[in-house]
Amino acid sequence: MNAVTDDMMQQAEQLSADLTRPIPGSRKIYAHGSRDDLRVPMREVAQARTAKSFGAEINPSLAIYDTSGPYTDPSVNIDLRKGLLPMRAAWIAERGDTEQLGGPTSVFGHDRLQDARTNHLRFEHLRAPRRARAGANVSQMHYARRGIITPEMEYIAIRENQLIDQIREDYLLRHHAGESFGASLPKIVTPEFVRDEVARGRAIIPCNINHPELEPMIIGRNFLVKINSNIGNSAVSSSIAEEVEKMVWSIRWGADTVMDLSTGKHIHETREWIIRNSPVPIGTVPIYQALEKVNGKAEELTWEIFRDTLIEQAEQGVSYFTIHAGVRLKYIPLTARRVTGIVSRGGSIMAKWCLAHHKESFLFDRFEEICEIMKAYDVSFSLGDGLRPGSIADANDAAQFGELETLGELTQIAWKHDVQTMIEGPGHVPMHLIKENMDKQLRECGEAPFYTLGPLTTDIAPGYDHITSAIGAAMIGWYGTAMLCYVTPKEHLGLPNKHDVRDGIVTYKIAAHAADLAKGHPAAQVRDNALSKARFEFRWEDQFNLGLDPEKAKEFHDETLPKEAHKVAHFCSMCGPHFCSMKITQDVRDYAAQKGVADEAAALEQGMAEKAAEFREAGLEIYRPE
Amino acid sequence: MNAVTDDMMQQAEQLSADLTRPIPGSRKIYAHGSRDDLRVPMREVAQARTAKSFGAEINPSLAIYDTSGPYTDPSVNIDLRKGLLPMRAAWIAERGDTEQLGGPTSVFGHDRLQDARTNHLRFEHLRAPRRARAGANVSQMHYARRGIITPEMEYIAIRENQLIDQIREDYLLRHHAGESFGASLPKIVTPEFVRDEVARGRAIIPCNINHPELEPMIIGRNFLVKINSNIGNSAVSSSIAEEVEKMVWSIRWGADTVMDLSTGKHIHETREWIIRNSPVPIGTVPIYQALEKVNGKAEELTWEIFRDTLIEQAEQGVSYFTIHAGVRLKYIPLTARRVTGIVSRGGSIMAKWCLAHHKESFLFDRFEEICEIMKAYDVSFSLGDGLRPGSIADANDAAQFGELETLGELTQIAWKHDVQTMIEGPGHVPMHLIKENMDKQLRECGEAPFYTLGPLTTDIAPGYDHITSAIGAAMIGWYGTAMLCYVTPKEHLGLPNKHDVRDGIVTYKIAAHAADLAKGHPAAQVRDNALSKARFEFRWEDQFNLGLDPEKAKEFHDETLPKEAHKVAHFCSMCGPHFCSMKITQDVRDYAAQKGVADEAAALEQGMAEKAAEFREAGLEIYRPE
Repeated sequence: MNAVTDDMMQQAEQLSADLTRPIPGSRKIYAHGSRDDLRVPMREVAQARTAKSFGAEINPSLAIYDTSGPYTDPSVNIDLRKGLLPMRAAWIAERGDTEQLGGPTSVFGHDRLQDARTNHLRFEHLRAPRRARAGANVSQMHYARRGIITPEMEYIAIRENQLIDQIREDYLLRHHAGESFGASLPKIVTPEFVRDEVARGRAIIPCNINHPELEPMIIGRNFLVKINSNIGNSAVSSSIAEEVEKMVWSIRWGADTVMDLSTGKHIHETREWIIRNSPVPIGTVPIYQALEKVNGKAEELTWEIFRDTLIEQAEQGVSYFTIHAGVRLKYIPLTARRVTGIVSRGGSIMAKWCLAHHKESFLFDRFEEICEIMKAYDVSFSLGDGLRPGSIADANDAAQFGELETLGELTQIAWKHDVQTMIEGPGHVPMHLIKENMDKQLRECGEAPFYTLGPLTTDIAPGYDHITSAIGAAMIGWYGTAMLCYVTPKEHLGLPNKHDVRDGIVTYKIAAHAADLAKGHPAAQVRDNALSKARFEFRWEDQFNLGLDPEKAKEFHDETLPKEAHKVAHFCSMCGPHFCSMKITQDVRDYAAQKGVADEAAALEQGMAEKAAEFREAGLEIYRPE
Repeated sequence: MNAVTDDMMQQAEQLSADLTRPIPGSRKIYAHGSRDDLRVPMREVAQARTAKSFGAEINPSLAIYDTSGPYTDPSVNIDLRKGLLPMRAAWIAERGDTEQLGGPTSVFGHDRLQDARTNHLRFEHLRAPRRARAGANVSQMHYARRGIITPEMEYIAIRENQLIDQIREDYLLRHHAGESFGASLPKIVTPEFVRDEVARGRAIIPCNINHPELEPMIIGRNFLVKINSNIGNSAVSSSIAEEVEKMVWSIRWGADTVMDLSTGKHIHETREWIIRNSPVPIGTVPIYQALEKVNGKAEELTWEIFRDTLIEQAEQGVSYFTIHAGVRLKYIPLTARRVTGIVSRGGSIMAKWCLAHHKESFLFDRFEEICEIMKAYDVSFSLGDGLRPGSIADANDAAQFGELETLGELTQIAWKHDVQTMIEGPGHVPMHLIKENMDKQLRECGEAPFYTLGPLTTDIAPGYDHITSAIGAAMIGWYGTAMLCYVTPKEHLGLPNKHDVRDGIVTYKIAAHAADLAKGHPAAQVRDNALSKARFEFRWEDQFNLGLDPEKAKEFHDETLPKEAHKVAHFCSMCGPHFCSMKITQDVRDYAAQKGVADEAAALEQGMAEKAAEFREAGLEIYRPE
């Protein structure tokens, strides 16, 4: 090892120490499936008992969907140099439809392995890639359509269901809010339901056979709304260790998938390190790397270079490819009068290629050949919206919707090959035009999952575009978008640092969860109710731990009331003891309980006057130490 | 002066130095009305010329709605000890329907003035209050209903219109986005339109005759969506100077009104300092101070104490009172089974009073007497939603909607007295239940303006409730809410500091503006288009200056690309020079322009092939130094 590697490894080890502690107030647990090696991770939040003055109830633990992988399991020894355990390796091998290759079959992958100049950056424990046997199709959609329930599908059913048991005994049934359940959502997610949704193309399970380390997850509108975090270096650069750190940091806060959008040096090596250490599916935009291979000259791109890049990345284990095959020649002039033209990097590269060659792109012309590669590794399509609007002014225009129609046609071709497919969406869209996007996408693309970037609902807040876009993201998630690509506060201004990544992810977890609530997902409201009950009962620690960011909540609380005693105080800093509305409610509740709440009006008439006197005599003090 | 005052004054002077510099990239301008003393402030953002490579266009200056008052006008000498100039004094005096009193007529106001112990806290230049002459009604609604267009109404018409001229010559007409204009919105806001909306009760102009310093503004759904910022100390406390600073800080970032929710010591003196230095209307919740007067014992509140508090505050110049008169006895038991009971401070105080006395509150019983006070000073009602939901589980329940119906009845009574009235709304509401709130409010309350707190769309993100609520705020603003009460990141956890106030306000400016866009307000999209055009053309400084927070945008940009040269660079740090999609678009645009864009399809067929060769020859480099 030379100095560079040493330095990188040191960084990596520090990372590992920093990011492997469990999330505060949480404990890693596993739910078991039908086979021993099917263990679905969850994050359990234990709750304190309700204080005596509020009724001394026992509050059940909550199991929360957990994307953080083995990093938050203290019993797992994390070594970034070795990567995660290949949990799915046996499932893939058992299917008997793949073969282990002698080494990378892409020219670039092969050459890079022999390149001594990148030795010091190389992941040490490279596995030879697998590929479908000749004529086989290893996509989850292919299995699903043949009626096979894979371990991946069972895993997902357990994962999506984790709160169902809690619902039964719990809050929702006690309160009226349960009424809002959407009719179309399953009460319980079964493995068969997962299979059926994948078979119909309404959901995808991105899980390349060369990424056996990943914990299966599903993207589809009848499941929990997912979020994606983007990482990746650029010419301005960051090191490999930093990118791995961003990935681990992303999943810690709740990213369901991570896209590696690196465009700088050593894309190949960076990606290898990321995938080997990632428990979530990794997506990429292969055209970025292809462009590096022709030194940034878009017009010099060829099908051969692109094809080799797809194979290179598929053999590393990328689970979905953004492919801008909908940027057709005829749509390009439609962008000329836009305020912000073409803002997608991939879209602009392809537009440039089309203009330079005056023909349809090889992505469009060779689409069926691309499908052949996808199904040999189970890479899913994320059909890119290269002509998405880059400003409010350009939303829902002819270029955008023209491309969407083409993406619908391409979806049908992909499905003919049983290749899993989702569709990328905008971008910048004012609120009143958002629903049209969703409706058109469902119609044109046969209900394939929609995966949107925001959309931003105004352009006037650079520095706050995680917020301008969370508004649109929550709404489009409610309307049916299956996965939301996060936006950080640095959008339009610079590259996100660790702090921005956290802000972006938590913001998007909010949008996704708000959408789950509005859709009536059976598991969603349990957590809101538990947190609100904790808040009402002044169980401060529980309130922090049940939130999306326990550390920040505690930090904010402590700024005003730093003492430990205040975290069990029966009032909060905003109102002080005299004004505590929560405590008043307990008086109301006590009163109602005593009278029997079934008929409040009757209760009211029965004994209000006598009660009033009693209530006065009892002391009335809002703040009583426990 | 003693040491306390000295210290306070020192703080105040520092404040003044810190907050009186103009907003970066902006210049204070004034539009003139029909009389010399009618000068409407605006904030003008000058723009650079478009770079040669993008067409060398001249970009017009933009006038932006400006809430920051004289603080950002370098020609005004700010002295917090003297307060702002009473701009409206002549307008009020000219109407001839008010009289100058000898001094405060409230018992408390009178006593406090004589109290030597508070001398050191007293604002030095107290004016004797004004009141309507016996039998007169000085509310703007009363004038409006008699067909009178006041200077306040004309001021507002100019203020709401400020971008209209720009629209004509500008972006909207060039681009298709103009199509989204709402049918119900006026193309131009005339003084007569303002009068008519106020007369119908669809809008209010909060402007107490004892706050002549305020710059008139309007709250109504056919105008720009407004936002309110809450300030105020509590038992945990902050000094008077800090509260004045928070007010100035709030309006600098865009607060249209400020509520002083102080509950600690010296509420009276704090409020005096705030009002004398505020160019925006100040709202309060008088029951908070009334409760202080009975040492926090809700059951000891009386109509007499409350009435005296209303007069005390009206004579200081408070422009709207939150009054929880809708908390009726019969609704209180309906909150017993809620997850979070009663969460409004005012609501819980009144609920406690009602339970203790077993009767309707004096707010409800004495409502007409309250109206008499309101119209003698032109204080507007903000009818409080004391039973608003405090959690997702409690949204849209019987208690909340019962109270809303009562607020509708009270609105009719207020209107009988020509008292301006708006209605407060929730709170915590999942997305799919938001519209029902708006629809019911419009129906029950005769289209009186709605003023909501968020609503928060999920409970699971303590530390990020500015975001959970901005989602709901933007949506309900689109549906018709006239003013949005901000929520800071500290909501539920602690008292906001300066940084939180800024985050809360900018977040709510986003929500309000997204709503204006979705409603199709004619002036809204001009700014988005200007900013997006600047972004597309890499006019970085213009992009910063047109944004809601120029300082943060610049700071974020500079983190990645710190050099001055990069602020005129034709690429950004996210993609680097090779990947610049913006530049590609210019190639597309040049091509389309040359061929004539009217018929893109024809253009495409005409000369694509020959063009392709040309395009290749021309160099194709994305990044060309200017």
